[in-house]
Amino acid sequence: MTIIANVELEGASLELPSLDALVGLVDDDINAVNQVILGQMQSHVPLIPELAGYLIAAGGKRLRPMLTLASARMAGYGGDRHIKLAACVEFIHTATLLHDDVVDESDLRRGIASANAVWGNQASVLVGDFLFSRAFQLMVEDGALDVLRILSNASAVIAEGEVMQLVTSNNMQTGEAEYLAVIEAKTAALFEAACRVGAVVAEQSEAQIERHGAFGANLGIAFQLVDDVLDYSARQSTLGKTVGDDFREGKITLPVVLAYQRGSAKDRAFWQRCLEQGEQRDGDLKTAFALLEEHGALADTVDRARSYGDRACEALEGLPEGAYKLALKDTVEFCISRAY
Amino acid sequence: MTIIANVELEGASLELPSLDALVGLVDDDINAVNQVILGQMQSHVPLIPELAGYLIAAGGKRLRPMLTLASARMAGYGGDRHIKLAACVEFIHTATLLHDDVVDESDLRRGIASANAVWGNQASVLVGDFLFSRAFQLMVEDGALDVLRILSNASAVIAEGEVMQLVTSNNMQTGEAEYLAVIEAKTAALFEAACRVGAVVAEQSEAQIERHGAFGANLGIAFQLVDDVLDYSARQSTLGKTVGDDFREGKITLPVVLAYQRGSAKDRAFWQRCLEQGEQRDGDLKTAFALLEEHGALADTVDRARSYGDRACEALEGLPEGAYKLALKDTVEFCISRAY
Repeated sequence: MTIIANVELEGASLELPSLDALVGLVDDDINAVNQVILGQMQSHVPLIPELAGYLIAAGGKRLRPMLTLASARMAGYGGDRHIKLAACVEFIHTATLLHDDVVDESDLRRGIASANAVWGNQASVLVGDFLFSRAFQLMVEDGALDVLRILSNASAVIAEGEVMQLVTSNNMQTGEAEYLAVIEAKTAALFEAACRVGAVVAEQSEAQIERHGAFGANLGIAFQLVDDVLDYSARQSTLGKTVGDDFREGKITLPVVLAYQRGSAKDRAFWQRCLEQGEQRDGDLKTAFALLEEHGALADTVDRARSYGDRACEALEGLPEGAYKLALKDTVEFCISRAY
Repeated sequence: MTIIANVELEGASLELPSLDALVGLVDDDINAVNQVILGQMQSHVPLIPELAGYLIAAGGKRLRPMLTLASARMAGYGGDRHIKLAACVEFIHTATLLHDDVVDESDLRRGIASANAVWGNQASVLVGDFLFSRAFQLMVEDGALDVLRILSNASAVIAEGEVMQLVTSNNMQTGEAEYLAVIEAKTAALFEAACRVGAVVAEQSEAQIERHGAFGANLGIAFQLVDDVLDYSARQSTLGKTVGDDFREGKITLPVVLAYQRGSAKDRAFWQRCLEQGEQRDGDLKTAFALLEEHGALADTVDRARSYGDRACEALEGLPEGAYKLALKDTVEFCISRAY
């Protein structure tokens, strides 16, 4: 049963969509993944575990490695290769975050000061490189070329996506198609790869691996769309992120693309001043909130997310029924419901 | 025959040690490597080939990929796998340079403005990530797990070395042993891996692979020692590098370690002010030159380099006689003679 809405009814309190079902199913596995992560981020250079541990202990949701674990188990896998490979997925994700923090000059990540704010850009870049290399060492230990192929391809695509994002930054000519290409590459590629790896480990057919991949890719797009909505709406305290980061950095996300396209000449001049020329004044973020609201840009972005979420659930159709499938459907709902 | 000295005799002009023999032997192969590099740095994101091409076209010596090519050929390899893998070695090296430029905030690389000075730190980090991923994609295409193991291990060690260097920066307590550990990791590891990969492709015995690796590792140490001497002695126009970079960045290299250990209390206070506190004034670099000269720190560093060069040549002893071995000996001489 999938819990759909986070609606406050009079006197009633509906249960919120959550990752609980997924977390419950992969609980033992994720503990094993955490052990691998802790063991493999060690180095005789103390700054490496110190910095990596800071980020890893900050405790993301471990969503991507959970997808690897669940994909493998859903397909009936009974071994333990998925543990190490889920750790690889998390290492690649962590390396990306470290390099992304350098890129974004963001001050907050998961509610605490970002690693580069504490140790500097230099250490963040290098420890990211270390974790990335460590991921490949672990994959080599596992010994499966098809896994190495999936994750090296994903890594290249992620880097391309990040560069694309850099190029579209401060450019109000960025359209919806370009925005989607960016998030497919920078976010959805790793979600897709995480799911594929689980299916490959479970020795599924090409057709099944494709379904796992399609689930991950569509979930990843939905996840990023909602993330971009959250940057203009959620309270920092609940999200652990500075609201308005994207605005300050001149990042062109779908809410902005929609509000710009639908806006008056005066609105467009506002967006151009703030995001292209980077001339931001007190009160601009509030104006941005109002314009996004006025043009329904946030609601429509969430709608798009829901549509990708639906596609993710459709991709699950050909996969085995059971607790894992239900938990993955809940995961889709959870990712979208974060927007509210 | 190895040409040893770059001595100016009255009226006579001795031939300088050079890479000519090596370049001559691998000429066709290196052209093929360049084709792979040009093809594989392409992306539908134009900034990637633009930035990567800028650095790659700036034309390093391609020393590391030449080591892969020569190691394979010296061992009698007749196929073409070494071409693609030599390109991987160069991609990893280029990615390291891109990330290193971010780290060092250096303005010049190979005599032209560094990539990060032109495109910014952000693009340099991300294009570095792309090239690194591309290297692994190419290795996966090649399909040999032992090659993947060598280069993923080397990448992790390089990152550790770079972090170690960061930690020893601005710290005059850094000793010779720590300095050596840094350069073994940040430089020698890739030289070693480059040679090993060539031997692995040629299906050599473990013992032979070890010899190739020992040659590369010792050559790499010698190369870096001389590089660190050059930072205090060569003219920018001939080296294509800003002299005094290490000094300005507070990098603790062997020449400084030796001059500090041998210096008076007043000398030590000078080094501490300049390199630990980073308080540098006009004329300080000139004073540094004088102190390094006074204590024989540059000459002794070159002596150390020569001793590692000798070890590199010893490692060649068990390997096949012929043009390749002579060319590799010349390469050792070339790397050391750059100091003069």
